[in-house]
Amino acid sequence: MSQPAARPLILVTNDDGITAPGIRNLVESIADLGDVVVVAPNNHQSGMGHAITISNILKMWPHDFGMEGVRAYKTSGTPVDCVKLAIYKILDRTPDILLSGINHGSNSSINVIYSGTMGAAVEGALEGIPSVGFSLCDFAEDADFRGACRAVRTVTEKVLKEGTPKGTCLNVNIPKVAPEALKGLRISRQAAGHWADSFEERTAPGGRPYYWMTGNFTDVDSGEDTDEWALRHGYVSVVPVQYDLTAHHAMAELNQWHLGFDS
Amino acid sequence: MSQPAARPLILVTNDDGITAPGIRNLVESIADLGDVVVVAPNNHQSGMGHAITISNILKMWPHDFGMEGVRAYKTSGTPVDCVKLAIYKILDRTPDILLSGINHGSNSSINVIYSGTMGAAVEGALEGIPSVGFSLCDFAEDADFRGACRAVRTVTEKVLKEGTPKGTCLNVNIPKVAPEALKGLRISRQAAGHWADSFEERTAPGGRPYYWMTGNFTDVDSGEDTDEWALRHGYVSVVPVQYDLTAHHAMAELNQWHLGFDS
Repeated sequence: MSQPAARPLILVTNDDGITAPGIRNLVESIADLGDVVVVAPNNHQSGMGHAITISNILKMWPHDFGMEGVRAYKTSGTPVDCVKLAIYKILDRTPDILLSGINHGSNSSINVIYSGTMGAAVEGALEGIPSVGFSLCDFAEDADFRGACRAVRTVTEKVLKEGTPKGTCLNVNIPKVAPEALKGLRISRQAAGHWADSFEERTAPGGRPYYWMTGNFTDVDSGEDTDEWALRHGYVSVVPVQYDLTAHHAMAELNQWHLGFDS
Repeated sequence: MSQPAARPLILVTNDDGITAPGIRNLVESIADLGDVVVVAPNNHQSGMGHAITISNILKMWPHDFGMEGVRAYKTSGTPVDCVKLAIYKILDRTPDILLSGINHGSNSSINVIYSGTMGAAVEGALEGIPSVGFSLCDFAEDADFRGACRAVRTVTEKVLKEGTPKGTCLNVNIPKVAPEALKGLRISRQAAGHWADSFEERTAPGGRPYYWMTGNFTDVDSGEDTDEWALRHGYVSVVPVQYDLTAHHAMAELNQWHLGFDS
């Protein structure tokens, strides 16, 4: 039997770098579903949000991902740079799906805004590609990815069939529980949350101060329809994320201002 | 006569760096309205979006802004880092308003997503601070900021009085027209737009390739209520921007998927 004429083209990226266990687990979960091309950062790019490299050069190298049939490239850029390089430089057709992750650590609640993993997924959506970011709520290098891989497989199969709602990508977070304890997947909204940051001051050799940012996250949302609620209760959270940032509901209020010069 | 008990505390940042003409014009426009503290990047941080520095150290230095009564600091970080340093390290109370800019170049339409200027404003909103990003649609170092300064003054006075709608900050873009040709301010929504990128390949001494990202932006939105329409017609566009990225309207559609494991 011959291959189907159009085997799906699957673009994979992440923000923890091309050698992270998370991206390997992701590719292993879906490699049989299509032709996989990995374009991912050479180094850690956590916290890069939607950053792009416009005032500096980008470098790119072929990379041996160590899996048969998987083409891979590593770049000096951010996750969003990787998506742009893939679409406009590497690939000869638009991917059928973009998968980002599996991130080592949660991207639920407002963390979506700082997340390079989700920056890449949003960039895919801007290009009209059904796009999903996956994050496991476990920062450990040797985290157990089995539950996350199950979620990757389920969501990827569904999105290959259905696409994603217009103007959105999906933010999928997997709780840190044993894979058999996962209760299922829950469509959720982004919980309201807050980071209380602090800056630890240290002194460099030579006497000048420098700072490390640390912080504590608090879920300040009592809703039972949030991603944080889902994760706390053993569910995989699935949040549709949009790139139209307009607060449409606030426009009427602002129009009441009758903003004019010298008003 | 004594000062009013609580003179507004005005936090100012940008993404073009603390010595850019845009931030000086901004501060000059509003310095009499309160106590101004500038915390801005030491270097260009364009295109940094909502990036933060979590895998590296931050440096910070006092800076002589050259204006009486204006305290200033420059940092090695991104615009969002600057906001966090200001709130959690430098200031002893929460600012009454955060102003970011004036950016050299447009942040209308989907450019809001890549913008360090707007990253800082969104971060201010996350902290509950009425926050506004200002951008002039002119990349020139010697751009005419007079119209932009008028918009800064008008919007800042209004926001000091009214605050901003809950959960939002404002994205204010000023068209490149003579200040007297400005028609007014228009509450707008983010236009749908698309960047067609390309990567110019060059060869480093030694023979390895490297790339410069360039691109062409297209407004693909025919609406007359967009920021792009306002700017094309000589208006200052004012878009309320939210940090809840949930595509609430897409949740019903996703719930129809009945997402389950092995479904």
